[in-house]
Amino acid sequence: MNIKTYIITKKLNSYYKKAIEEYEKRLQLYAKTSITLVKSESVLKKKLNSNYYTILVSPDGKNLSSTSLASHINTLGIQGTSNINFVIAENIVDLNFDEIISLSQMSINVSLTSVILYEQIYRAYRIINNHSYHK
Amino acid sequence: MNIKTYIITKKLNSYYKKAIEEYEKRLQLYAKTSITLVKSESVLKKKLNSNYYTILVSPDGKNLSSTSLASHINTLGIQGTSNINFVIAENIVDLNFDEIISLSQMSINVSLTSVILYEQIYRAYRIINNHSYHK
Repeated sequence: MNIKTYIITKKLNSYYKKAIEEYEKRLQLYAKTSITLVKSESVLKKKLNSNYYTILVSPDGKNLSSTSLASHINTLGIQGTSNINFVIAENIVDLNFDEIISLSQMSINVSLTSVILYEQIYRAYRIINNHSYHK
Repeated sequence: MNIKTYIITKKLNSYYKKAIEEYEKRLQLYAKTSITLVKSESVLKKKLNSNYYTILVSPDGKNLSSTSLASHINTLGIQGTSNINFVIAENIVDLNFDEIISLSQMSINVSLTSVILYEQIYRAYRIINNHSYHK
């Protein structure tokens, strides 16, 4: 699976960047992941590969547990989806998404949301592969 | 307000520790906060100040938005509660809590949950004081 994450932000805090890098390293076992920081919605539209299955992460999205997200990613793979985009943004993005999911009902800043998403993608692959979770 | 956070874990990852320290620094303007790492539930029971209003953070707890948490902390203060304990644990803790709240419906590791809690406490005080949110 190719997983591309687009974050509308100028910069990630260094400690959050380190946390994400750690999960990216661990995820190499399961998927090809990348992060792209984009400055604005218009830049996002130009960069986003629209052939990918595209998921917006937003507090207003569908509530999923960690196991539901894992089974969802697994099912997408089985059904032949090999490319997923995740989009994280502070404000509403005027784009057609395949779906909108929520990591929390709370408003959480974009950098920290990115860390949570990566932790959940890593956790999803541990669940899918029946591997114990490595903190 | 005195806010004490107890985390049942041996160690926090260095990048998560840095994120928490950053929020603790910013929170100095609003509240006195501290973090105590405890190794086990039995150590927690000995250390916990039971005169404090004690809140467990768990995915099974009550879903709160950021503004609801802010108004809840504010109301507790107005009603005369000046000391709050937050408890974060991987597993179920056999203790009487004043309430159980959820930061996310997902299972998130203890260190990252602590960062989210601190971001939310900081966000709550920005909301209570009508200050804009500083990322």
